[in-house]
Amino acid sequence: MKKKFKKVNAAILIIGNEILSGRTQDKNIIFISNWLNSKCGISVSEVRIIPDVEKTIIENIKTLSKKFNYVFTTGGIGPTHDDITAKSIAKAFKMKYRFHTEAYKILESYYGKKKFNEGRKKMAKMPSEAKLIYNPSSAAPGFMTKNVLSLPGVPSILNSMIENCKPYLIKGLKTYSRTINLFTVESNISKELEAIQLKFKKFVDIGSYPFFRLGKIGVSVVSRSTSMTYLSKVNKDLLRLVKSKKIKLLKL
Amino acid sequence: MKKKFKKVNAAILIIGNEILSGRTQDKNIIFISNWLNSKCGISVSEVRIIPDVEKTIIENIKTLSKKFNYVFTTGGIGPTHDDITAKSIAKAFKMKYRFHTEAYKILESYYGKKKFNEGRKKMAKMPSEAKLIYNPSSAAPGFMTKNVLSLPGVPSILNSMIENCKPYLIKGLKTYSRTINLFTVESNISKELEAIQLKFKKFVDIGSYPFFRLGKIGVSVVSRSTSMTYLSKVNKDLLRLVKSKKIKLLKL
Repeated sequence: MKKKFKKVNAAILIIGNEILSGRTQDKNIIFISNWLNSKCGISVSEVRIIPDVEKTIIENIKTLSKKFNYVFTTGGIGPTHDDITAKSIAKAFKMKYRFHTEAYKILESYYGKKKFNEGRKKMAKMPSEAKLIYNPSSAAPGFMTKNVLSLPGVPSILNSMIENCKPYLIKGLKTYSRTINLFTVESNISKELEAIQLKFKKFVDIGSYPFFRLGKIGVSVVSRSTSMTYLSKVNKDLLRLVKSKKIKLLKL
Repeated sequence: MKKKFKKVNAAILIIGNEILSGRTQDKNIIFISNWLNSKCGISVSEVRIIPDVEKTIIENIKTLSKKFNYVFTTGGIGPTHDDITAKSIAKAFKMKYRFHTEAYKILESYYGKKKFNEGRKKMAKMPSEAKLIYNPSSAAPGFMTKNVLSLPGVPSILNSMIENCKPYLIKGLKTYSRTINLFTVESNISKELEAIQLKFKKFVDIGSYPFFRLGKIGVSVVSRSTSMTYLSKVNKDLLRLVKSKKIKLLKL
Protein backbone atom coordinates (compact mmCIF):
# COMPACT_ATOMS: atom_id res chain seq x y z
CA MET A 1 0.00 0.00 0.00
CA LYS A 2 1.23 3.45 -0.84
CA LYS A 3 2.03 5.77 2.04
CA LYS A 4 -0.24 8.79 2.09
CA PHE A 5 1.50 12.14 2.23
CA LYS A 6 -0.01 15.49 3.09
CA LYS A 7 0.90 18.88 1.72
CA VAL A 8 3.83 20.34 3.64
CA ASN A 9 5.06 23.89 3.12
CA ALA A 10 7.99 26.08 4.07
CA ALA A 11 9.17 29.67 4.01
CA ILE A 12 12.71 30.84 3.29
CA LEU A 13 14.05 33.80 5.27
CA ILE A 14 17.19 35.27 3.73
CA ILE A 15 19.00 37.35 6.36
CA GLY A 16 21.56 39.66 4.83
CA ASN A 17 22.17 43.30 3.93
CA GLU A 18 24.35 42.16 1.02
CA ILE A 19 21.37 40.65 -0.82
CA LEU A 20 19.01 43.56 -0.11
CA SER A 21 21.54 46.17 -1.20
CA GLY A 22 22.06 44.48 -4.57
CA ARG A 23 25.71 43.68 -3.84
CA THR A 24 25.21 39.92 -4.05
CA GLN A 25 23.00 37.79 -6.30
CA ASP A 26 21.11 35.29 -4.16
CA LYS A 27 21.58 31.67 -5.19
CA ASN A 28 20.12 29.95 -2.16
CA ILE A 29 16.40 30.41 -2.87
CA ILE A 30 16.40 28.42 -6.09
CA PHE A 31 18.61 25.70 -4.58
CA ILE A 32 16.60 25.23 -1.37
CA SER A 33 13.28 25.37 -3.22
CA ASN A 34 14.27 22.72 -5.77
CA TRP A 35 15.81 20.47 -3.12
CA LEU A 36 12.80 20.72 -0.80
CA ASN A 37 10.34 19.85 -3.52
CA SER A 38 12.31 17.08 -5.24
CA LYS A 39 13.74 15.39 -2.14
CA CYS A 40 11.16 16.06 0.54
CA GLY A 41 7.88 16.92 -1.18
CA ILE A 42 7.86 20.30 0.56
CA SER A 43 6.69 23.43 -1.30
CA VAL A 44 8.17 26.84 -0.64
CA SER A 45 5.19 29.17 -0.17
CA GLU A 46 6.92 32.43 0.70
CA VAL A 47 10.37 33.98 0.68
CA ARG A 48 11.48 37.08 2.56
CA ILE A 49 14.77 38.91 2.40
CA ILE A 50 15.48 41.09 5.42
CA PRO A 51 18.41 43.09 6.85
CA ASP A 52 20.71 42.08 9.72
CA VAL A 53 18.51 43.84 12.27
CA GLU A 54 17.57 41.97 15.43
CA LYS A 55 14.05 43.35 15.77
CA THR A 56 13.26 42.54 12.15
CA ILE A 57 14.62 39.00 12.42
CA ILE A 58 12.62 38.33 15.60
CA GLU A 59 9.36 39.60 14.05
CA ASN A 60 9.82 37.52 10.92
CA ILE A 61 10.77 34.34 12.79
CA LYS A 62 7.64 34.68 14.94
CA THR A 63 5.34 35.31 11.98
CA LEU A 64 6.74 32.75 9.57
CA SER A 65 7.18 29.92 12.08
CA LYS A 66 3.48 30.16 12.93
CA LYS A 67 2.34 30.39 9.32
CA PHE A 68 4.35 27.57 7.71
CA ASN A 69 5.39 24.01 8.58
CA TYR A 70 9.08 24.93 8.33
CA VAL A 71 11.18 28.04 8.03
CA PHE A 72 14.67 27.94 6.48
CA THR A 73 16.93 30.84 7.37
CA THR A 74 20.15 31.56 5.50
CA GLY A 75 22.96 33.82 6.65
CA GLY A 76 24.10 35.40 9.89
CA ILE A 77 25.57 32.36 11.65
CA GLY A 78 29.27 33.18 11.27
CA PRO A 79 31.81 34.63 13.72
CA THR A 80 31.42 38.39 13.14
CA HIS A 81 29.33 41.12 14.81
CA ASP A 82 26.79 41.16 11.96
CA ASP A 83 26.00 37.45 12.53
CA ILE A 84 23.01 37.70 14.84
CA THR A 85 20.68 34.98 13.58
CA ALA A 86 21.17 32.53 16.50
CA LYS A 87 20.74 35.21 19.16
CA SER A 88 17.66 36.64 17.45
CA ILE A 89 16.00 33.23 17.11
CA ALA A 90 16.66 32.55 20.81
CA LYS A 91 14.91 35.83 21.63
CA ALA A 92 12.02 35.11 19.26
CA PHE A 93 11.34 31.80 21.03
CA LYS A 94 12.22 33.10 24.52
CA MET A 95 15.03 30.55 24.85
CA LYS A 96 18.44 31.08 26.36
CA TYR A 97 21.30 31.86 23.98
CA ARG A 98 24.18 29.69 25.14
CA PHE A 99 26.96 27.33 24.13
CA HIS A 100 25.76 24.11 22.57
CA THR A 101 27.99 21.42 24.13
CA GLU A 102 28.35 19.28 21.02
CA ALA A 103 28.84 22.26 18.67
CA TYR A 104 31.52 23.57 21.01
CA LYS A 105 33.34 20.22 20.93
CA ILE A 106 33.09 19.97 17.13
CA LEU A 107 34.55 23.44 16.63
CA GLU A 108 37.23 23.02 19.29
CA SER A 109 38.48 19.81 17.73
CA TYR A 110 38.29 21.30 14.20
CA TYR A 111 40.36 24.41 15.01
CA GLY A 112 42.48 23.00 17.83
CA LYS A 113 42.44 24.46 21.35
CA LYS A 114 44.96 27.22 20.56
CA LYS A 115 43.18 28.60 17.53
CA PHE A 116 39.71 28.35 19.05
CA ASN A 117 39.30 32.09 19.59
CA GLU A 118 36.31 34.22 20.63
CA GLY A 119 34.90 34.61 17.10
CA ARG A 120 34.98 30.87 16.51
CA LYS A 121 33.48 30.13 19.92
CA LYS A 122 30.58 32.40 18.98
CA MET A 123 29.60 29.89 16.30
CA ALA A 124 28.85 27.35 19.06
CA LYS A 125 26.34 29.69 20.72
CA MET A 126 22.75 28.79 19.89
CA PRO A 127 19.20 28.87 21.24
CA SER A 128 19.04 26.45 24.20
CA GLU A 129 16.80 23.89 22.47
CA ALA A 130 18.66 23.90 19.14
CA LYS A 131 19.49 20.61 17.42
CA LEU A 132 22.55 20.50 15.16
CA ILE A 133 22.66 20.38 11.38
CA TYR A 134 26.12 19.02 10.61
CA ASN A 135 28.49 20.84 8.26
CA PRO A 136 30.87 18.65 6.26
CA SER A 137 32.64 21.65 4.64
CA SER A 138 33.74 23.98 7.39
CA ALA A 139 32.61 22.36 10.67
CA ALA A 140 30.46 25.20 12.05
CA PRO A 141 27.04 23.54 12.35
CA GLY A 142 23.67 24.91 11.40
CA PHE A 143 20.83 24.26 13.79
CA MET A 144 17.11 23.65 14.10
CA THR A 145 15.08 25.54 16.69
CA LYS A 146 11.44 24.43 16.90
CA ASN A 147 10.46 24.40 13.20
CA VAL A 148 13.17 26.83 12.09
CA LEU A 149 16.27 25.46 10.31
CA SER A 150 19.24 27.83 10.19
CA LEU A 151 21.87 27.50 7.48
CA PRO A 152 24.84 29.66 6.46
CA GLY A 153 24.68 32.20 3.62
CA VAL A 154 27.67 30.95 1.59
CA PRO A 155 26.03 28.80 -1.14
CA SER A 156 28.76 26.13 -1.39
CA ILE A 157 28.64 25.48 2.37
CA LEU A 158 24.84 25.58 2.47
CA ASN A 159 24.66 23.11 -0.41
CA SER A 160 26.97 20.68 1.37
CA MET A 161 24.76 20.73 4.50
CA ILE A 162 21.31 20.44 2.97
CA GLU A 163 21.10 16.63 3.13
CA ASN A 164 21.63 16.86 6.89
CA CYS A 165 18.33 18.71 7.20
CA LYS A 166 16.42 15.70 5.93
CA PRO A 167 16.15 13.74 9.21
CA TYR A 168 14.30 16.72 10.73
CA LEU A 169 11.70 17.05 7.98
CA ILE A 170 8.36 15.34 7.54
CA LYS A 171 7.98 14.17 3.98
CA GLY A 172 5.13 15.74 2.05
CA LEU A 173 3.40 15.44 -1.26
CA LYS A 174 5.77 16.14 -4.11
CA THR A 175 4.72 18.68 -6.71
CA TYR A 176 5.28 17.50 -10.27
CA SER A 177 5.51 19.85 -13.20
CA ARG A 178 5.22 19.67 -16.97
CA THR A 179 6.28 22.35 -19.38
CA ILE A 180 5.35 22.80 -23.01
CA ASN A 181 7.04 25.52 -25.03
CA LEU A 182 4.94 27.08 -27.74
CA PHE A 183 5.91 29.42 -30.58
CA THR A 184 3.03 31.81 -30.06
CA VAL A 185 2.17 34.87 -28.00
CA GLU A 186 0.33 34.70 -24.69
CA SER A 187 -2.70 36.63 -25.88
CA ASN A 188 -3.30 34.06 -28.63
CA ILE A 189 -4.00 31.34 -26.06
CA SER A 190 -5.02 33.26 -22.94
CA LYS A 191 -8.75 32.61 -23.27
CA GLU A 192 -8.42 28.85 -23.81
CA LEU A 193 -5.73 28.57 -21.15
CA GLU A 194 -8.03 30.18 -18.63
CA ALA A 195 -10.77 27.69 -19.49
CA ILE A 196 -8.39 24.77 -18.91
CA GLN A 197 -7.21 26.29 -15.63
CA LEU A 198 -10.82 26.72 -14.48
CA LYS A 199 -11.65 23.12 -15.38
CA PHE A 200 -8.78 21.76 -13.24
CA LYS A 201 -8.75 24.56 -10.65
CA LYS A 202 -8.64 22.29 -7.62
CA PHE A 203 -5.81 20.07 -8.76
CA VAL A 204 -3.45 21.89 -11.12
CA ASP A 205 -1.81 25.32 -11.25
CA ILE A 206 -1.12 26.51 -14.77
CA GLY A 207 1.37 29.31 -15.35
CA SER A 208 2.26 31.07 -18.57
CA TYR A 209 5.73 32.60 -19.12
CA PRO A 210 6.96 34.41 -22.24
CA PHE A 211 10.37 33.42 -23.62
CA PHE A 212 12.65 34.59 -26.43
CA ARG A 213 14.58 31.95 -28.33
CA LEU A 214 16.03 31.53 -31.79
CA GLY A 215 14.96 35.10 -32.47
CA LYS A 216 11.33 34.21 -31.86
CA ILE A 217 8.83 34.95 -29.12
CA GLY A 218 7.30 31.99 -27.34
CA VAL A 219 5.33 30.96 -24.29
CA SER A 220 6.23 28.30 -21.75
CA VAL A 221 3.11 26.81 -20.26
CA VAL A 222 3.97 25.19 -16.93
CA SER A 223 1.50 22.93 -15.14
CA ARG A 224 2.14 21.98 -11.53
CA SER A 225 0.30 19.45 -9.44
CA THR A 226 0.74 16.83 -6.76
CA SER A 227 -1.23 14.46 -9.03
CA MET A 228 0.40 12.97 -12.12
CA THR A 229 -3.03 11.87 -13.33
CA TYR A 230 -4.35 15.40 -13.41
CA LEU A 231 -1.15 16.67 -14.97
CA SER A 232 -1.67 14.25 -17.85
CA LYS A 233 -5.25 15.38 -18.26
CA VAL A 234 -4.19 19.01 -18.44
CA ASN A 235 -1.46 18.10 -20.88
CA LYS A 236 -3.97 16.42 -23.18
CA ASP A 237 -6.15 19.54 -23.20
CA LEU A 238 -3.12 21.71 -23.85
CA LEU A 239 -2.00 19.60 -26.80
CA ARG A 240 -5.53 19.73 -28.22
CA LEU A 241 -5.37 23.54 -27.98
CA VAL A 242 -1.97 23.59 -29.68
CA LYS A 243 -3.28 21.44 -32.52
CA SER A 244 -6.47 23.46 -33.03
CA LYS A 245 -4.49 26.72 -33.23
CA LYS A 246 -1.74 25.18 -35.40
CA ILE A 247 0.95 26.33 -32.96
CA LYS A 248 4.49 25.02 -33.34
CA LEU A 249 6.12 23.38 -30.36
CA LEU A 250 9.70 24.05 -29.34
CA LYS A 251 11.28 20.74 -28.51
CA LEU A 252 14.25 20.93 -26.15
CA MET B 1 23.56 75.41 -0.76
CA LYS B 2 23.21 71.64 -0.92
CA LYS B 3 19.74 70.20 -1.06
CA LYS B 4 18.93 68.12 2.00
CA PHE B 5 17.66 64.65 1.35
CA LYS B 6 15.96 62.32 3.81
CA LYS B 7 16.17 58.57 4.02
CA VAL B 8 13.66 56.96 1.65
CA ASN B 9 13.00 53.22 1.61
CA ALA B 10 11.20 50.67 -0.52
CA ALA B 11 10.08 47.05 -0.53
CA ILE B 12 10.11 44.72 -3.52
CA LEU B 13 7.24 42.26 -3.91
CA ILE B 14 7.99 39.51 -6.42
CA ILE B 15 4.72 37.92 -7.53
CA GLY B 16 5.25 34.59 -9.23
CA ASN B 17 4.98 30.86 -8.68
CA GLU B 18 7.91 30.34 -11.08
CA ILE B 19 10.36 32.02 -8.70
CA LEU B 20 9.02 30.30 -5.56
CA SER B 21 9.08 26.86 -7.15
CA GLY B 22 12.73 27.19 -8.15
CA ARG B 23 11.95 27.06 -11.86
CA THR B 24 13.31 30.53 -12.55
CA GLN B 25 16.27 32.40 -11.09
CA ASP B 26 15.15 35.89 -10.07
CA LYS B 27 17.16 38.71 -11.63
CA ASN B 28 14.91 41.64 -10.79
CA ILE B 29 15.77 42.11 -7.11
CA ILE B 30 19.43 42.92 -7.70
CA PHE B 31 18.60 45.18 -10.66
CA ILE B 32 15.88 47.21 -8.92
CA SER B 33 17.88 47.49 -5.70
CA ASN B 34 20.99 48.80 -7.44
CA TRP B 35 19.02 51.19 -9.63
CA LEU B 36 16.99 52.58 -6.72
CA ASN B 37 20.06 53.27 -4.62
CA SER B 38 22.33 54.65 -7.33
CA LYS B 39 19.77 56.70 -9.25
CA CYS B 40 17.23 57.69 -6.60
CA GLY B 41 18.91 57.34 -3.20
CA ILE B 42 16.26 54.84 -2.16
CA SER B 43 17.19 51.78 -0.05
CA VAL B 44 15.42 48.46 -0.40
CA SER B 45 14.56 47.38 3.14
CA GLU B 46 12.61 44.20 2.50
CA VAL B 47 11.85 41.76 -0.32
CA ARG B 48 9.06 39.23 -0.42
CA ILE B 49 8.39 36.54 -2.98
CA ILE B 50 4.80 35.28 -3.02
CA PRO B 51 2.59 33.06 -5.19
CA ASP B 52 -0.04 34.18 -7.72
CA VAL B 53 -2.79 34.02 -5.11
CA GLU B 54 -5.17 36.97 -4.83
CA LYS B 55 -5.59 36.87 -1.05
CA THR B 56 -1.83 36.72 -0.50
CA ILE B 57 -1.17 39.60 -2.91
CA ILE B 58 -3.81 41.78 -1.23
CA GLU B 59 -2.43 41.13 2.27
CA ASN B 60 1.12 41.90 1.22
CA ILE B 61 0.20 45.07 -0.68
CA LYS B 62 -1.66 46.36 2.37
CA THR B 63 1.17 45.56 4.80
CA LEU B 64 4.10 46.71 2.70
CA SER B 65 2.51 49.92 1.36
CA LYS B 66 1.94 51.07 4.94
CA LYS B 67 5.40 50.07 6.14
CA PHE B 68 7.60 51.52 3.38
CA ASN B 69 7.74 54.70 1.28
CA TYR B 70 7.39 52.71 -1.93
CA VAL B 71 6.56 49.16 -2.99
CA PHE B 72 7.76 47.74 -6.31
CA THR B 73 5.86 44.73 -7.57
CA THR B 74 7.14 42.53 -10.40
CA GLY B 75 5.13 40.02 -12.39
CA GLY B 76 1.49 39.26 -13.00
CA ILE B 77 0.59 42.10 -15.37
CA GLY B 78 0.38 40.14 -18.62
CA PRO B 79 -2.60 38.85 -20.61
CA THR B 80 -3.13 35.40 -19.08
CA HIS B 81 -5.35 34.06 -16.27
CA ASP B 82 -2.42 33.91 -13.81
CA ASP B 83 -1.80 37.66 -14.20
CA ILE B 84 -3.81 39.02 -11.30
CA THR B 85 -1.60 41.80 -9.91
CA ALA B 86 -3.69 44.75 -11.17
CA LYS B 87 -6.98 43.30 -9.96
CA SER B 88 -5.51 42.39 -6.57
CA ILE B 89 -4.03 45.86 -6.04
CA ALA B 90 -7.39 47.42 -6.93
CA LYS B 91 -9.00 45.23 -4.25
CA ALA B 92 -6.28 46.01 -1.69
CA PHE B 93 -6.94 49.75 -2.09
CA LYS B 94 -10.72 49.39 -2.56
CA MET B 95 -10.53 50.95 -6.02
CA LYS B 96 -12.41 49.94 -9.14
CA TYR B 97 -10.63 47.64 -11.59
CA ARG B 98 -11.34 49.11 -14.99
CA PHE B 99 -9.92 50.11 -18.36
CA HIS B 100 -7.36 52.90 -18.20
CA THR B 101 -8.24 55.14 -21.16
CA GLU B 102 -4.68 56.01 -22.16
CA ALA B 103 -3.36 52.46 -21.66
CA TYR B 104 -6.23 51.19 -23.84
CA LYS B 105 -5.30 53.65 -26.60
CA ILE B 106 -1.59 52.79 -26.41
CA LEU B 107 -2.28 49.06 -26.72
CA GLU B 108 -4.93 49.45 -29.42
CA SER B 109 -2.59 51.52 -31.58
CA TYR B 110 0.34 49.13 -30.91
CA TYR B 111 -1.53 45.95 -31.93
CA GLY B 112 -3.97 47.50 -34.41
CA LYS B 113 -7.74 47.25 -33.94
CA LYS B 114 -8.03 43.79 -35.51
CA LYS B 115 -5.42 42.13 -33.35
CA PHE B 116 -6.50 43.86 -30.15
CA ASN B 117 -8.08 40.75 -28.59
CA GLU B 118 -9.43 40.03 -25.11
CA GLY B 119 -6.08 39.02 -23.62
CA ARG B 120 -4.42 42.17 -24.83
CA LYS B 121 -7.30 44.34 -23.67
CA LYS B 122 -6.84 42.89 -20.20
CA MET B 123 -3.45 44.59 -20.02
CA ALA B 124 -5.25 47.97 -20.11
CA LYS B 125 -7.31 47.12 -17.01
CA MET B 126 -5.95 48.72 -13.86
CA PRO B 127 -6.94 50.13 -10.48
CA SER B 128 -9.03 53.27 -11.11
CA GLU B 129 -6.44 55.71 -9.76
CA ALA B 130 -3.42 54.13 -11.48
CA LYS B 131 -0.88 56.32 -13.26
CA LEU B 132 1.03 54.82 -16.19
CA ILE B 133 4.65 53.71 -16.30
CA TYR B 134 5.49 53.67 -20.01
CA ASN B 135 6.96 50.60 -21.66
CA PRO B 136 9.33 51.26 -24.58
CA SER B 137 9.81 47.53 -25.35
CA SER B 138 6.41 45.96 -25.68
CA ALA B 139 3.87 48.77 -25.17
CA ALA B 140 1.90 47.27 -22.23
CA PRO B 141 2.40 49.87 -19.50
CA GLY B 142 3.19 49.32 -15.85
CA PHE B 143 1.35 51.50 -13.38
CA MET B 144 1.58 53.24 -10.04
CA THR B 145 -1.27 52.96 -7.55
CA LYS B 146 -0.81 55.09 -4.43
CA ASN B 147 2.79 54.28 -3.47
CA VAL B 148 2.89 50.93 -5.29
CA LEU B 149 4.72 50.70 -8.63
CA SER B 150 3.87 47.63 -10.72
CA LEU B 151 6.32 46.31 -13.31
CA PRO B 152 6.37 43.16 -15.45
CA GLY B 153 8.34 40.04 -14.49
CA VAL B 154 10.38 39.66 -17.70
CA PRO B 155 13.75 41.24 -16.79
CA SER B 156 14.55 42.77 -20.20
CA ILE B 157 11.19 44.55 -20.32
CA LEU B 158 11.37 45.62 -16.67
CA ASN B 159 14.87 47.01 -17.24
CA SER B 160 13.70 49.07 -20.21
CA MET B 161 10.91 50.65 -18.12
CA ILE B 162 12.73 51.47 -14.92
CA GLU B 163 13.73 55.02 -15.90
CA ASN B 164 10.05 55.81 -16.37
CA CYS B 165 9.49 55.21 -12.65
CA LYS B 166 11.77 58.12 -11.76
CA PRO B 167 9.25 60.98 -12.14
CA TYR B 168 7.08 59.31 -9.48
CA LEU B 169 9.82 58.94 -6.87
CA ILE B 170 11.05 61.34 -4.21
CA LYS B 171 14.81 61.41 -4.20
CA GLY B 172 16.43 60.24 -0.98
CA LEU B 173 19.83 59.99 0.61
CA LYS B 174 22.12 57.78 -1.41
CA THR B 175 23.94 54.99 0.41
CA TYR B 176 27.63 54.78 -0.46
CA SER B 177 29.70 51.68 0.07
CA ARG B 178 33.36 50.79 0.33
CA THR B 179 34.77 47.29 0.16
CA ILE B 180 38.17 46.04 1.24
CA ASN B 181 39.12 42.46 0.48
CA LEU B 182 41.44 40.82 2.99
CA PHE B 183 43.33 37.56 2.80
CA THR B 184 42.39 36.41 6.28
CA VAL B 185 39.58 34.55 8.04
CA GLU B 186 36.66 36.26 9.70
CA SER B 187 37.47 35.04 13.19
CA ASN B 188 40.91 36.70 12.99
CA ILE B 189 39.33 40.15 12.80
CA SER B 190 35.87 39.68 14.33
CA LYS B 191 36.71 41.28 17.67
CA GLU B 192 38.32 44.42 16.21
CA LEU B 193 35.62 44.69 13.53
CA GLU B 194 32.95 44.69 16.20
CA ALA B 195 34.75 47.48 18.06
CA ILE B 196 34.87 49.59 14.88
CA GLN B 197 31.19 48.87 14.20
CA LEU B 198 30.27 49.92 17.76
CA LYS B 199 32.28 53.14 17.44
CA PHE B 200 30.40 54.17 14.28
CA LYS B 201 27.11 52.44 15.08
CA LYS B 202 24.88 55.38 14.25
CA PHE B 203 26.39 56.21 10.88
CA VAL B 204 27.88 53.16 9.22
CA ASP B 205 26.86 49.52 8.70
CA ILE B 206 29.78 47.14 8.44
CA GLY B 207 29.28 43.70 6.94
CA SER B 208 31.74 40.84 6.67
CA TYR B 209 31.53 38.27 3.86
CA PRO B 210 33.84 35.32 3.27
CA PHE B 211 35.16 34.75 -0.26
CA PHE B 212 37.30 32.16 -2.03
CA ARG B 213 39.73 33.39 -4.65
CA LEU B 214 43.05 32.27 -6.14
CA GLY B 215 42.72 29.16 -4.00
CA LYS B 216 42.68 31.22 -0.83
CA ILE B 217 40.08 32.15 1.73
CA GLY B 218 39.39 35.82 2.26
CA VAL B 219 36.95 38.27 3.77
CA SER B 220 35.25 41.20 2.07
CA VAL B 221 34.53 43.93 4.57
CA VAL B 222 31.79 46.16 3.22
CA SER B 223 30.96 49.49 4.86
CA ARG B 224 27.77 51.29 3.92
CA SER B 225 26.68 54.76 4.89
CA THR B 226 24.87 57.83 3.62
CA SER B 227 27.90 59.85 4.79
CA MET B 228 31.16 59.76 2.82
CA THR B 229 32.94 61.40 5.75
CA TYR B 230 32.08 58.58 8.10
CA LEU B 231 32.89 55.99 5.45
CA SER B 232 36.41 57.44 5.23
CA LYS B 233 36.77 57.36 9.00
CA VAL B 234 35.77 53.71 9.10
CA ASN B 235 38.13 52.97 6.24
CA LYS B 236 41.04 54.50 8.15
CA ASP B 237 40.31 52.34 11.17
CA LEU B 238 40.03 49.26 8.97
CA LEU B 239 43.36 49.94 7.28
CA ARG B 240 44.98 50.42 10.69
CA LEU B 241 43.59 47.01 11.72
CA VAL B 242 44.89 45.43 8.51
CA LYS B 243 48.37 46.88 9.12
CA SER B 244 48.52 45.85 12.78
CA LYS B 245 47.57 42.27 11.90
CA LYS B 246 49.85 42.18 8.83
CA ILE B 247 46.98 41.08 6.61
CA LYS B 248 47.42 41.09 2.83
CA LEU B 249 44.91 43.02 0.75
CA LEU B 250 43.43 41.65 -2.47
CA LYS B 251 43.49 44.45 -5.01
CA LEU B 252 40.94 44.12 -7.78
